[in-house]
Amino acid sequence: MNSPLAWPVTFKNNIIYVLDETELPLEEKYIEVKTLDEALRVLGQMKTRAFGQVLLFFYTCAISNKIDEIAQEFLKTRPTFDFFLLSRILKEVFEKTNDIKSAVDILLDNFEKKRRNRVKKLASILPDYSKILTICNVSGELVYLYEALRDIGKKVAFYVSETRPYLQGSRLTFWELNRNNIPVKLICDNQSAIIMEKKLVNCIITGSDRSTIKGDIINKIGTYPLAVLANYYNIPFYSLVQYPSDIDVNEIVIEERPKEEIFMFINSSHIYAHLDAIYMSFDITPSELITGRIDMEGNLR
Amino acid sequence: MNSPLAWPVTFKNNIIYVLDETELPLEEKYIEVKTLDEALRVLGQMKTRAFGQVLLFFYTCAISNKIDEIAQEFLKTRPTFDFFLLSRILKEVFEKTNDIKSAVDILLDNFEKKRRNRVKKLASILPDYSKILTICNVSGELVYLYEALRDIGKKVAFYVSETRPYLQGSRLTFWELNRNNIPVKLICDNQSAIIMEKKLVNCIITGSDRSTIKGDIINKIGTYPLAVLANYYNIPFYSLVQYPSDIDVNEIVIEERPKEEIFMFINSSHIYAHLDAIYMSFDITPSELITGRIDMEGNLR
Repeated sequence: MNSPLAWPVTFKNNIIYVLDETELPLEEKYIEVKTLDEALRVLGQMKTRAFGQVLLFFYTCAISNKIDEIAQEFLKTRPTFDFFLLSRILKEVFEKTNDIKSAVDILLDNFEKKRRNRVKKLASILPDYSKILTICNVSGELVYLYEALRDIGKKVAFYVSETRPYLQGSRLTFWELNRNNIPVKLICDNQSAIIMEKKLVNCIITGSDRSTIKGDIINKIGTYPLAVLANYYNIPFYSLVQYPSDIDVNEIVIEERPKEEIFMFINSSHIYAHLDAIYMSFDITPSELITGRIDMEGNLR
Repeated sequence: MNSPLAWPVTFKNNIIYVLDETELPLEEKYIEVKTLDEALRVLGQMKTRAFGQVLLFFYTCAISNKIDEIAQEFLKTRPTFDFFLLSRILKEVFEKTNDIKSAVDILLDNFEKKRRNRVKKLASILPDYSKILTICNVSGELVYLYEALRDIGKKVAFYVSETRPYLQGSRLTFWELNRNNIPVKLICDNQSAIIMEKKLVNCIITGSDRSTIKGDIINKIGTYPLAVLANYYNIPFYSLVQYPSDIDVNEIVIEERPKEEIFMFINSSHIYAHLDAIYMSFDITPSELITGRIDMEGNLR
């Protein structure tokens, strides 16, 4: 069982192939990227995100090796993600190998194994019948989680919050679970509270674009209220996190995206172009609302 | 200043004219209704809702006077709304007048005045610069509220939550405020928490389809989490309520609507017809989370 979202960006013969996540679930097509400018364009248009950003960053370094410059430009385009951290990790390996492509290879080699391992850890602490609410998309890891739960004889049902305005929950998570015949129901974001109240779910699992040493997570807008509600209804809230940044939470810049995306619900969204909206696309969930964080090494804390 | 949504259903020469709210904001058109069956159809399709349902119920009684039967059929179509309560109110007046059309006239005569009066009461307790977050649509009363606040020299800004899946916030409230040049910004529902955290709003105001003696309100799905969040961030939460029902909160049936409405975000929503979703379209906000309720008589409690 797998999901195209588990490895949405690949690299072959100096060309980066980026799964266009904005076209899912209607079409599964790939964009060819050969330069930093092209990489920044697909990044800004959110053609790829989450784990795809990590892969795109490493592969972009592989084609030009100007690691610092690339990190700077990537960060300008998607300020919420910690590309400096990725550049530090890459430079450490690069210093030893002196070949950028080998450095990227070494770094990515164990990634799938690490991701599968950490969801096994998570599966071991989840309920025997895990009714999981999730938001946005955790880049294929929920498919791994389903397998890990099934392998130890636990039942699973997923509830996916649609995740307005870009609908990554509906378009990506719902799609990747459904195509693997995993039990899944879609809800609109407004129903998160009522399904917790009615005990239709017994745990919340999210990803995280970034996390702090203290354990706060920065993730798609809507994650913070999920954690407040989970605490109110006494439901555990787990997060699959990136390597933690040593940045102070107050220094983190929350990306504001073009307000037009808020108005995209109607075909003729151009008639709204002059109207006003707010679109802070990420939020910060304080550590005290999070039951557990599982990092890339499988540590739970 | 007014909103077509403040009186969305009218009655003339035995024909009921129903503003088709599902076509807003692109088109302002009216559906002619002459029979109970036609009334039930526009009700089931949510062509009208909230205060429009009240008007549609009374006018449907005016054309056939079978009050009990009409209440029963209306309730089957929209179980969350208390049509029995409306039928009791109407029958009281009907017994005195013996003419159903006069009874409806008498009942509705003071409605606009009452609604304007109660928002004056609400305006008097809101902050000098009222930054108001709202959800769904309060049938034109927020336009009255804006006037009431302005008349006593208070500044106002509205934030409207889009209210998935039917988007009544975006399509109705945002539209009616904007067309009156009232300052308003649209947010997707997922941003409610962050704008409270960042103090962009200092009060929440919602309507209510129904309320209990104890003070719980039943309103569009998404209202309950707003109240939980408002309490978490210590922001007052007010609700403009209907006449209270004497029903116990556990007896209230929450309407579940066709799951197709959840999938309507993509044009080709038919490809999802076989897939699974949940759509509980209302939720119940417990009284202890509500700062104040303003009823039709202007009482605040």
